[in-house]
Amino acid sequence: MLDILNKINHPSDLNDLSIDNLEKLSEEIREVLLQKLSKNGGHFGPNFGMVEAIIAMHYVFESPKDKFVFDVSHQSYTHKILTGRKEGFIEEKSYKTVSGYTNPEESEHDFFNVGHTSTSISLASGLAKARDLKKEDYNVVAVIGDGSLSGGEALEGLNFAGSELNSNFIIIVNDNQQSIAENHGGLYKNLDELRETNGQASNNLFKAMGLDYIYEADGNNIEKMIELFQKIKDIDHPIVVHINTKKGKGYKLAEENKESWHWTLPFDSETGKVTVNFGNTESYADLTAKFLLDKMKKDNTVVAVTPAMPMTIGFGIERRQEAGEQFVDVGIAEEHAVALVSGIAKNGGKPVLGTNATFIQRSYDQISQDLCINSNPATIVLNYTSVTGLTDVTHLGIFTIAAFSNIPNLVLLAPTNKVEYFAMLDWSIEQQEHPVMILMPGNGVINDGREAEKDYSNIINKFKVEEEGSKVAILGLGDFYQIGEAASKIVEDKLGFKPTLINPRFASGVDKELLEDLKQNHELVITLEDGILRGGFGESIASFYGDSDMKVKNYGLEKEFYDRYNPNQLLDELGITPEKIVNYIESMIK
Amino acid sequence: MLDILNKINHPSDLNDLSIDNLEKLSEEIREVLLQKLSKNGGHFGPNFGMVEAIIAMHYVFESPKDKFVFDVSHQSYTHKILTGRKEGFIEEKSYKTVSGYTNPEESEHDFFNVGHTSTSISLASGLAKARDLKKEDYNVVAVIGDGSLSGGEALEGLNFAGSELNSNFIIIVNDNQQSIAENHGGLYKNLDELRETNGQASNNLFKAMGLDYIYEADGNNIEKMIELFQKIKDIDHPIVVHINTKKGKGYKLAEENKESWHWTLPFDSETGKVTVNFGNTESYADLTAKFLLDKMKKDNTVVAVTPAMPMTIGFGIERRQEAGEQFVDVGIAEEHAVALVSGIAKNGGKPVLGTNATFIQRSYDQISQDLCINSNPATIVLNYTSVTGLTDVTHLGIFTIAAFSNIPNLVLLAPTNKVEYFAMLDWSIEQQEHPVMILMPGNGVINDGREAEKDYSNIINKFKVEEEGSKVAILGLGDFYQIGEAASKIVEDKLGFKPTLINPRFASGVDKELLEDLKQNHELVITLEDGILRGGFGESIASFYGDSDMKVKNYGLEKEFYDRYNPNQLLDELGITPEKIVNYIESMIK
Repeated sequence: MLDILNKINHPSDLNDLSIDNLEKLSEEIREVLLQKLSKNGGHFGPNFGMVEAIIAMHYVFESPKDKFVFDVSHQSYTHKILTGRKEGFIEEKSYKTVSGYTNPEESEHDFFNVGHTSTSISLASGLAKARDLKKEDYNVVAVIGDGSLSGGEALEGLNFAGSELNSNFIIIVNDNQQSIAENHGGLYKNLDELRETNGQASNNLFKAMGLDYIYEADGNNIEKMIELFQKIKDIDHPIVVHINTKKGKGYKLAEENKESWHWTLPFDSETGKVTVNFGNTESYADLTAKFLLDKMKKDNTVVAVTPAMPMTIGFGIERRQEAGEQFVDVGIAEEHAVALVSGIAKNGGKPVLGTNATFIQRSYDQISQDLCINSNPATIVLNYTSVTGLTDVTHLGIFTIAAFSNIPNLVLLAPTNKVEYFAMLDWSIEQQEHPVMILMPGNGVINDGREAEKDYSNIINKFKVEEEGSKVAILGLGDFYQIGEAASKIVEDKLGFKPTLINPRFASGVDKELLEDLKQNHELVITLEDGILRGGFGESIASFYGDSDMKVKNYGLEKEFYDRYNPNQLLDELGITPEKIVNYIESMIK
Repeated sequence: MLDILNKINHPSDLNDLSIDNLEKLSEEIREVLLQKLSKNGGHFGPNFGMVEAIIAMHYVFESPKDKFVFDVSHQSYTHKILTGRKEGFIEEKSYKTVSGYTNPEESEHDFFNVGHTSTSISLASGLAKARDLKKEDYNVVAVIGDGSLSGGEALEGLNFAGSELNSNFIIIVNDNQQSIAENHGGLYKNLDELRETNGQASNNLFKAMGLDYIYEADGNNIEKMIELFQKIKDIDHPIVVHINTKKGKGYKLAEENKESWHWTLPFDSETGKVTVNFGNTESYADLTAKFLLDKMKKDNTVVAVTPAMPMTIGFGIERRQEAGEQFVDVGIAEEHAVALVSGIAKNGGKPVLGTNATFIQRSYDQISQDLCINSNPATIVLNYTSVTGLTDVTHLGIFTIAAFSNIPNLVLLAPTNKVEYFAMLDWSIEQQEHPVMILMPGNGVINDGREAEKDYSNIINKFKVEEEGSKVAILGLGDFYQIGEAASKIVEDKLGFKPTLINPRFASGVDKELLEDLKQNHELVITLEDGILRGGFGESIASFYGDSDMKVKNYGLEKEFYDRYNPNQLLDELGITPEKIVNYIESMIK
C-alpha cells in the first residue's frame, strides 16, 4: 500500500505532509526500492541511506528552480521517485524507463548525466557561477558521498568553492563511513573525528579549505534534516553540510554488509540471496586475484593497487587481508594510483594496478607523463573493456584502445584467451622495460588450446599468425579474435579458400614487417576491434596500407556515446558478426 | 669568483662547509643562475626562492640514497648544480646539456622526468611504498610549491600519505605565496593563516588530511633550514614541512614582480629588460584576450576560465581586473576547470576555458564525461598545440588531436588563419549545441585574405575546398594548411596540374560526402596534420578509403616522446616540407 507515495507527483506535493506522513513516505519508498532492486538489481546501500535526506531536500528546497547535483548520481533514486518518475520504480513494466543515474533527458530536475565519481561539486559550482553572472537568485546544492571526496576533482572543487565562489552554494557531504569497499585516506580520519565530536573537532578539513561548515549526526531523521536545510536555505556563501547517514538503512543485510550491498544483482528479498545463476564459470577477476596472491607469496615486491575497485581484480575482503601490505586500495583517486605505481616500479617494486576501463580515463595525463615518459614498468589491468561490458553511457569501456594507444612507450596488450592473458600478465609483472596496459577479454575465459609466448620482450608489436592462408587476412584484436576465427572458418567452408588469421596481441603498435609480407599473397585485410574505430587499432592498419594496392576494411564501433544498448544487436547492426563479415569478403573477392 | 662552488662536485662536498660558507655558496649559485637565465631564459622565481632550502636538503640528507622528488621540477636548478651538473649552468657552451627539469638520464639524483604539476607527492609515495616492501631504510622527500597543491593529484597524494603510508615520508611545502600568477583557492587562505600564526592556526589542512606538520618561517635561512631538516630526518611517519620562502629572492625585480619573473626569456641582468625582440607581430593569445574582453562588455554571461594559465589567452593582470567576475582563474585544477565550464554552459553562461594543450590532457575524463556526454556548449581554447611550440618532452602539444578526437560530441576545430580562428571562436561562444575545442595555430597570425564562415552549426564536419583541382587532393589540417598550400603551388608549377586543396576545419570528423566525391577525378589523397599520426586525423581518412581504389598518404609526427628537438629539422626528417611532399606526389602520379 503506497498511500502517501500515490499522491506524490511533484516535489511540491510534499509540502502538505506532516512529519509523520513524511516518515511513512520514507517507508513506502524503501518498500518500492526493495521491490525493484530485488527484481532488477542496482545500487542498493547508497539509495537506502539517503531516503530521508532527499525527502527533506525536496521538502525544503524548490526543485528545479533550486538545483541539485548528485555525485555519481547512483544515490538519486528517491529524487527520481519524487520528481515524476515513480512509475519507473513501482511498475515492473516501466523499470527500464529510468536510468540508474541522473539524466536531463528524463527530467528537468536533473542537470547532468553523471556516472563517474567526484564531479558534483565542480559541476554544481558551474551552475552557481552562471547564476551569479546572470544575477539570478536560488540555491545550488551538490551532494557527495560514498568515498567520492578523495577524488582529485572533488578536492579541487572544494578548494575552489572555499574562496572563489562568494555566493550561495551548499555542499551536502553524505558521510556513511564507507566507499564501495572501506574508505581510504587521511581525510576519512578527519570525518571520523568530526562525527565523534559532533562536528567540533579541530583541524576541520572543510574549514581548512575555506568553507563554512555545519554537522548533523542524524541524517536519517527527516525532521532534523528539514530543520537543518531550513537553516541553511538561501545562505549567502558556500557551506559544507556534513550529515551522518547509515548506508543500506532499513534493510538489515545491507546495514551489516555494506560492501556487498553497495550494488546488487537481483536477489530474494527474504534471504538476500542473488537469484541470478551464472553457474560455475571462471571469471578473469577471480583468476587474476588468485594469480596475484600466488605471486605475492613468492615475491614480496609484487603489490596490487586499486583506486577503490578491488573486486575488479577479484580482491574481496579476505583476499585483501591475505595480501596484507601487498594490496593497496588508494581510495577513489585514479591519478594518484597511476603515479603511485610509477613510483613503485621506479624503485624496484612490481605493481599491478587494477580498475574498470571507464575509470582509467581519469588518469590519461598521469599515464602519459608520470608513467610513460619515464617508461617505468608498471602493469595496469583493466576490466569491463568490452562492448559486452557495462552498457550505461557513463561506464563504457569501448574508448580504451583509442584513448590510450596514442601514448608512446605504453604497451597495450589485447589477449585472446586465458593462457595468453596470464602469460602477458606474468611477463608484464616480471619485465623491467615497459609500462603495460592489459585489456581483460570481455567474452569469457576461453580455453581453446592455443598457446602463448613466455616472454614478449623481444617481440613488442609483433603480430602472431595463428592460421596461415591467402587472399584475405583477418586481424582479430583481443576478444574480437573469436569473431575473426569464426568468420575464417565460414570463408573456408563457403568460399573455398583459407584466410590468414592473425592475433595482433599488441593494440598499440603496427607490425610493419608482417603487414608488408601480407602484400605477397593477400588482397584484403580485415581488422576487428572491440572499441571505437576513430583513433583505434584498425585505422593505423588502414594508414599503413594507404598508398598500396591492399584493400583494408576496419570493423569496430562508431565514435558514439551508446547508452543502455543490446550488445549483440549493436554488433549485428554494425556488421560485426562472422556471417556478415563473410558476406563482405565474398563481395570483395572476385 | 665561484670559490666555494668550484669545490662542489657531489652533495657530500657540502658536509665540510661552515654555515658562512654555505651562505656564500648560495650567493655564488644565485650569481650563476642570474648569468645563465639572463642569457638562456628559464624558470627564474622558483629557483631563486629555493636556493637555501635545496642546499640544506643536500647538507642534511644523503642523496641519492635519500630520494628527492621535485614537483614540476622547474625549481630544481640548485639541485642540479649540487649533483654534478654545474657545468650546464656555469659554462655557456654547456647550457644545453641540462634540461629544465629533473631527468633520470642526466643523473642518479633524479628519479623522474617531470614537467606537469602536482605529481611529486604521489610519485614519491610510490618510491616510499617500494622501499617499505623491500624493507629498506632511507628518507623519501617530495617537494611541492608554486600553486601545485591545488591540483587534484597532489590532494589525492596528501590524502593517501595521511593514512596509508605508515613510514618515513617527508613533504616539503614550499610556500612562496604565489602560483605562476596569484594563488587561487581556499587552501591558500589556510596557508596564509598558518604563516600568520607561525604554524599554529586551527583547521590545519595537512593535519585534517591526517598528516604530521611542522612550520618554518624563514625558508631562506640556511642555518634554520638545516636545523629543521635535521629534526625530521629519519622520521618514522609522514610529515608536512611547511616552509615560507621568497619567490625570486635575491633579484629585486623578481621579488617585486613575481608573475613576470616566474619564467623569463633572456634579459639584460642590469635592467631586467628582455633582450629577445619579436617585433610587433600579433599573437593569438593577445588577440584572444582583446576579443573576449570586447565580448564580455556586450554580454555579461561571457566568462573566461583558466587553470592558472591566464597568459595563454593573453590575460595579464590589468585585463584580469578589467574582466572582473567574468574572468575566473581556478588555480592549478584542470579537472575542476572543465567541470566548471560544463556547469556554466548548462546554466546559460558562455564560458571559454583557455590553457596550454599539454595541460588539458589532465582532464580527458572530464571532457568526456562532465562535458561531452552532456553536450554542454563550452569552448576550450588551446595554446601551444603545435610541433613548433614547447619542445620539452613534458610539454608537447602534438598529442592533442589524437587524444581528443576520439571523444564523441566534441567539435575539434583547427583554424588555418586569423579570420577563421576568430570566426570559429565567435561561433563557438554563441552556439548552444556543442562542446568545442579550438586549436590555436602555431605558425603565427596569418592574414591571407581567405574568408571564413559566420555560422558552423549546419556544417559540422564539413571540409572546405579552398582550391578546386584534380588528380591529387591535399587535406591540410589547421596550421599545416600552409604547407599543403605551398606544396599545391609547386605541383602546379612543376607537374603541370592543379591539385585540390582542402581545409578540413574539423579535426574530429570525416566529411564522407566530400571524400566520396573526390573519387571521381582524384587518385591520391594527402593528409597533413600538426600532431602524431597514431589516432589522429589522417588515419580516419585512410580508413574511409581503405577498400576503395583511392591512394592515401598520411603526413604527421611519429608516436614518440620527442625531447628538445629542432622543429624544422624534425619536419624535414619526416618529409613534411612542401618540396618533399611534391616529390612524393610525383612518384605516385604517372
